[in-house]
Amino acid sequence: MSSISFSKALISKVSRSYPTPFYLYDERGIRKSIRLLKKAFSWHPSFREYFAVKATPNPSILKIMKSEGLGLDCSSLPELLLAERTGFAGDMIMFSSNNTPLQEFKKAKQLKAFINFDDISHISMMQKAYGLPKKVALRYNPGATRTGTSIMGAPKDAKFGMTKKQILEGLMLLKKHGVTEFGLHTMIISNELREQYFIDTASMMFDLVIDVKKRLGIDISSVNLGGGIGIPYRPRQKPFDIAKTGKATQRLYMKALKKGAKPFALHLECGRYITGPHGYLITKVRHFKDIYKKYVGLDASMADLMRPGMYGAYHEITVLGKENKPRNHIYDVTGSLCENNDKFAIDRKLPRLDYGDVVIIHDVGAHGHAMGFNYNGRLRSAEYLVSTSGKVKMIRRAEAIGDHFATLKF
Amino acid sequence: MSSISFSKALISKVSRSYPTPFYLYDERGIRKSIRLLKKAFSWHPSFREYFAVKATPNPSILKIMKSEGLGLDCSSLPELLLAERTGFAGDMIMFSSNNTPLQEFKKAKQLKAFINFDDISHISMMQKAYGLPKKVALRYNPGATRTGTSIMGAPKDAKFGMTKKQILEGLMLLKKHGVTEFGLHTMIISNELREQYFIDTASMMFDLVIDVKKRLGIDISSVNLGGGIGIPYRPRQKPFDIAKTGKATQRLYMKALKKGAKPFALHLECGRYITGPHGYLITKVRHFKDIYKKYVGLDASMADLMRPGMYGAYHEITVLGKENKPRNHIYDVTGSLCENNDKFAIDRKLPRLDYGDVVIIHDVGAHGHAMGFNYNGRLRSAEYLVSTSGKVKMIRRAEAIGDHFATLKF
Repeated sequence: MSSISFSKALISKVSRSYPTPFYLYDERGIRKSIRLLKKAFSWHPSFREYFAVKATPNPSILKIMKSEGLGLDCSSLPELLLAERTGFAGDMIMFSSNNTPLQEFKKAKQLKAFINFDDISHISMMQKAYGLPKKVALRYNPGATRTGTSIMGAPKDAKFGMTKKQILEGLMLLKKHGVTEFGLHTMIISNELREQYFIDTASMMFDLVIDVKKRLGIDISSVNLGGGIGIPYRPRQKPFDIAKTGKATQRLYMKALKKGAKPFALHLECGRYITGPHGYLITKVRHFKDIYKKYVGLDASMADLMRPGMYGAYHEITVLGKENKPRNHIYDVTGSLCENNDKFAIDRKLPRLDYGDVVIIHDVGAHGHAMGFNYNGRLRSAEYLVSTSGKVKMIRRAEAIGDHFATLKF
Repeated sequence: MSSISFSKALISKVSRSYPTPFYLYDERGIRKSIRLLKKAFSWHPSFREYFAVKATPNPSILKIMKSEGLGLDCSSLPELLLAERTGFAGDMIMFSSNNTPLQEFKKAKQLKAFINFDDISHISMMQKAYGLPKKVALRYNPGATRTGTSIMGAPKDAKFGMTKKQILEGLMLLKKHGVTEFGLHTMIISNELREQYFIDTASMMFDLVIDVKKRLGIDISSVNLGGGIGIPYRPRQKPFDIAKTGKATQRLYMKALKKGAKPFALHLECGRYITGPHGYLITKVRHFKDIYKKYVGLDASMADLMRPGMYGAYHEITVLGKENKPRNHIYDVTGSLCENNDKFAIDRKLPRLDYGDVVIIHDVGAHGHAMGFNYNGRLRSAEYLVSTSGKVKMIRRAEAIGDHFATLKF
């Protein structure tokens, strides 16, 4: 879990100034994570992180990525349009989608994005429809040779990527069609805190680079190791050691060069690692209920944050001004949806809560607001960004009833 | 599973005329379910079904309820506003919410809705803020005396309703504040196909009516048995026998009258039972993928239908024109989200599929479109209604990129 990076005074001020619930992001924290990530891989002359747009699809957040020199990982047409409107183009966009509609490839090509094919059949499809770009990547799925994580499932059961045989066939096909720069991509973990899992993935991909060279005589020009680096949602979980991972990756990279690989670019597409710990859901205590269990009702709901309800995900909860009070009360912390899984926490130890207490739900900077829905007619909340200078700026307004009814006919 | 109620010719025509994916609802089927429900309880002079808005929150669908004399069960301010704009008011709206913001009670009172309190503390809150209406209901949670279903969880772990002690206290409090009509409500099952579970609930509630009379001398004027009547999503599941359930409820009701209960109104708040089987998600085959498993990619995704990804829910799938073909192929049927749980079915036996095949996902009329989200920037689909006369009418347009970006600042 992240400790609160803002001062109590700031949160107290914003929670008085703006109607709760809302998301609050910490620009300083986001930049710090970016720099840690970049530093860990700074040994590589052409390392690039493509931030996974789906984690935090807000232009103001994406502009932070831009100013830090990051690219964007997009996986749908709306994400491509978001990237375009935020000023990204060309090589700074990686387009990694699956079960892709043709028009999305068209837009990706128009933006000169770096296209990563999820399936071998996409190569001919693209070639026939719009022609292939000079530079293309292929997504690898190692199947039963690797195990998975609970969210992603085992690679062999995942819908993503190609078999090794298809990767080899695909590369030959790309070559035949005039492609000159060949990338390899994989993404097999999600929210993983064990560094070794990432390092094993680097090892697997670098071996693939050498194998491709040996078998096909093709030099791979870039390797994208995907994202999936976890963050410690729970207290006492150890954060992912990015520096150690960077060094281990360097050793594997040098070994690959020694084994005959030509230098190749190195890419990542982290989302959660960068923004996850630096977003907070700020909400207030609205209701207490004492039946067979004790409940505290917040003014936020599952419409604002789906992860606990959908995955049973843990999010740390702190109470403004009661950070150091003993956690001697046990509550189910709920929203107001007419669904029993609309709970932010079950049997959570917290200090004694009072009406109007400002409750801070941690680590919602990634896959938080982005996964909200409108079930029960609940409207999704606003987003605010605290800039490096400490200024608070609204970066997304709350949904209004008009937005919710916009597609309807009365 | 429901068999397709439309002719092949109709589906074939609409799937050519309108861009897939979209929802297609069957007005005739919806009216048929309503009438079955009403018939089963027609022995009761003042039976009323309050349709659960959250199941299918579309004004054109809600107008069908209105024309059949049904009320609406609302649980949030946007649902109250939707009811109001669709022409419902007064007694025809039941407001059943939890962890309720004060302004929602205000709107409910303004609409003269029948308010159902989820928690005992709401009584004083309402009384102080706006005064109590003359007619009020209280929601009962039986706790450990009843078991639950997998989706709802056990009543003792559910955030809804009051203990028996609170119900008794609450009724006295209501009486003290001048309330003259007292309702009792419960909702402890979800998607339940066992009639006995419903009948046991009726028995439990009617016993409560008698107990309240004995202990407090208060005559209960209405009992709402909730919803939660299931539909057979899977082939070979037996549909819920509503006629039998109606008869069993009648016997229990007569018994209660004999035991001294004054005649009381009987209410239900079904959603799924009414619209569930009469909505279809119409989508087309976009992609095939053959790696460690065989995948078929549709142009719909989890953004359109969340139930399989969120709950592992089963939805029957048929293929237009291939209804009688042998189901001798096994596919994972996927959407295009960058999430491995974006699958409509896993290891499903289907006929051999081809590009462009129209795939019909059954039983999505309730909690289908309503639970959609915009993860990965995916836009939610349109809804069409086939009227009783066979006319096809758009009742919700598809989301456009402008809707998706409406709350953003670029």
